[in-house]
Amino acid sequence: MGLREYSREELRKAYEGWKKEYDAWKAKGLKLDMSRGKPSTVQLDLSMDMITGMQYEDYFTDDGVDIRNYGMLEGLPKCRALFAQLLGVQPENVIVGGNSSLNLMYDAVARSMILGVCGGTPWMKQGRVKFLCPVPGYDRHFAICEQMGIEMVNIPMREDGPDMDLVEQLVNTDPAVKGIWCVPKYSNPSGITYSDEVVRRFAALTPAAPDFRIYWDDAYAVHDLYEEGGDKLLGLYEELKKNGKEDMAYLFTSTSKITFAGAGVAAMAASERNIQSISSILTIQTIGHDKVKQAMLVKYFQNKEGILAHMKKHAAIMRPKFEAVLGLLRGELAPLEIARWTEPKGGYFVSVDVLPGCAKRVVALCKEAGVVLTGAGASFPYQKDPQDANIRLAPSYPPVEELTQAMQLFCLAVKLAAAEKLLEN
Amino acid sequence: MGLREYSREELRKAYEGWKKEYDAWKAKGLKLDMSRGKPSTVQLDLSMDMITGMQYEDYFTDDGVDIRNYGMLEGLPKCRALFAQLLGVQPENVIVGGNSSLNLMYDAVARSMILGVCGGTPWMKQGRVKFLCPVPGYDRHFAICEQMGIEMVNIPMREDGPDMDLVEQLVNTDPAVKGIWCVPKYSNPSGITYSDEVVRRFAALTPAAPDFRIYWDDAYAVHDLYEEGGDKLLGLYEELKKNGKEDMAYLFTSTSKITFAGAGVAAMAASERNIQSISSILTIQTIGHDKVKQAMLVKYFQNKEGILAHMKKHAAIMRPKFEAVLGLLRGELAPLEIARWTEPKGGYFVSVDVLPGCAKRVVALCKEAGVVLTGAGASFPYQKDPQDANIRLAPSYPPVEELTQAMQLFCLAVKLAAAEKLLEN
Repeated sequence: MGLREYSREELRKAYEGWKKEYDAWKAKGLKLDMSRGKPSTVQLDLSMDMITGMQYEDYFTDDGVDIRNYGMLEGLPKCRALFAQLLGVQPENVIVGGNSSLNLMYDAVARSMILGVCGGTPWMKQGRVKFLCPVPGYDRHFAICEQMGIEMVNIPMREDGPDMDLVEQLVNTDPAVKGIWCVPKYSNPSGITYSDEVVRRFAALTPAAPDFRIYWDDAYAVHDLYEEGGDKLLGLYEELKKNGKEDMAYLFTSTSKITFAGAGVAAMAASERNIQSISSILTIQTIGHDKVKQAMLVKYFQNKEGILAHMKKHAAIMRPKFEAVLGLLRGELAPLEIARWTEPKGGYFVSVDVLPGCAKRVVALCKEAGVVLTGAGASFPYQKDPQDANIRLAPSYPPVEELTQAMQLFCLAVKLAAAEKLLEN
Repeated sequence: MGLREYSREELRKAYEGWKKEYDAWKAKGLKLDMSRGKPSTVQLDLSMDMITGMQYEDYFTDDGVDIRNYGMLEGLPKCRALFAQLLGVQPENVIVGGNSSLNLMYDAVARSMILGVCGGTPWMKQGRVKFLCPVPGYDRHFAICEQMGIEMVNIPMREDGPDMDLVEQLVNTDPAVKGIWCVPKYSNPSGITYSDEVVRRFAALTPAAPDFRIYWDDAYAVHDLYEEGGDKLLGLYEELKKNGKEDMAYLFTSTSKITFAGAGVAAMAASERNIQSISSILTIQTIGHDKVKQAMLVKYFQNKEGILAHMKKHAAIMRPKFEAVLGLLRGELAPLEIARWTEPKGGYFVSVDVLPGCAKRVVALCKEAGVVLTGAGASFPYQKDPQDANIRLAPSYPPVEELTQAMQLFCLAVKLAAAEKLLEN
């Protein structure tokens, strides 16, 4: 029986039972953190041979160029080729960056603010500038816009991607719309993957603004939890090319969740015209990114197959964590019908919608009992969830036992908050 | 006898002799590059133990934090402390960056353009913005200003630093002046070091603009050629503090010419107020820079003494190259009085002034005979040397024998160009 069908008396009784349970949890003095999509130490240990396996000859290209020295602004050719495989483009479409794809995205926006897109008018001189933000989405995307004073427009997320009717309407008619943030595969936080139909509609957009770009953050391109039945994402760049619209997107990815979260290698991909424009600016910004790390990456993985084989090891660590989270949600919350959640086949997050008006309360209850979750509202522009319903769970960092404890407490907090809310009426 | 005292007949004869020599050089088909301050492979080999010497426990802080993971935006505490020693500040004044100090400088300017300095009005909304540029100076500093549309004002360099009368006059009266580029030790390209008096005058500036900053690029802080008698630079930050003006400077350095040119670690230092403002922006820009490299650096060098000991190995490689360059300049050009040059005790460059109107010609003559020099004018804003006299020599990359050949050709080209110029009259 769903909690909303409880009589007032039943509700009060349930509340009191849960309250007692909660107080007992509080007394345990937990100290658990599932706030961010941080890989665990066991995962980071998987890639140590990348560093120790280097031989002296690995520091030179096949042509004998010393990669420890200056040069090769766009990255080691072999590393560009590796990322090209991941992003579904050609090596010449790739710029390899530092360790942070966020940094590449931030700089892409910052460049547009100061210098414009491909020689266009700088956004800072255009007045109002808007980005479309599928919600719930990645907080750090939205933070870039907020810092730059770019207006954000919420776009509802569906099972198969953003509401494309709305996207088309806004992009195709409003010249102030300069971008849209997308995590197309195992989306942060909902874990869904854009359908072929959605990708094709993206590739067919006819933007009112010539300097509109799709910011395609393919952070979880190879992050399947299961060997069979992982989500397949249609290649955006190929679709754009079919339509002669390949200038319309910037693609991003990184190895932060393949090798080392804080010391990976990031890359972006774009059309020849975009890359040419970006390189001409980048050559003033930096002496070039760290090619030693790029060489380590290439030597260790060789190609996409090497990466996919490695990702199976990550999956073996991540799978039980996702299953623990989903198992508890199903067992504890499904019968009461007080929450909905996604059941992703990859990525780093599970997105839970609790009863409207309860998300902040759930996060506060968890915090009070020693479990830190991502702040309620974090997945929305300006940290404002209009429903106060969404909570992002990040199961990767804690060991399964701790995660199980944290999730037991979480489920209890959801029940408690729901009962409080229903008793208010 | 100086070339200018030659009779016309003597001049013509000298010219013809040199022309014959030059044609013989051209026939050799040289292919030498002394255009950039690139370390040689032998120098890069010095630091390989930094990578191979890492043990598993080195990937954790003393508190057990996994440095391969996200976190520590401003850098590893021990790495901040190491750079604090180099820059004469406290660890909390340091932000450790990626591999490129140029990138830190570019971003400092870009941030100011979009977001202003410490919450001030963004430069893009202030109309005219100017930077003072001591000349000759570092081409990449000037390129940042040129790209951003920041107006550059030439400031003559003296033996002991920039013309401070002019600097004071402009900084203290013109609110459009927002910055000055300085390479205070073993300056690029002249190799001079600012005197204590000049540093003190910098620290006593009273800028008309509250968002004026000194961009203090201490790229060659530990790059002495000789164990004894190296230049000493007075610490700017300490002097600023004495005057209560510590907000007025950003300090930069990197290990590009200590470890790996393309894969070093860069850092900036500034006052608490500046660091706080920058960090609050940086946390949106990046997930943090690569701490694995920072850990390698700290483990390998431990402290400033470790770095100084290492720099003696670089000096042993660089010294003969500088001596070869200076020896040839003295032997070939001094008697003819057709060039002046600096004799730096450290750094990466020798700056030569040939007869006015001859620099481009010298570079062209060298190029024609297979020796690539830094472009004439490169050390000036907008690549415009008003005298067409300055040429930057970068002796680090070629082996001594090749360098000697290149310099023989260079001296010949200087003579030839001088004779051509004098014969014109």
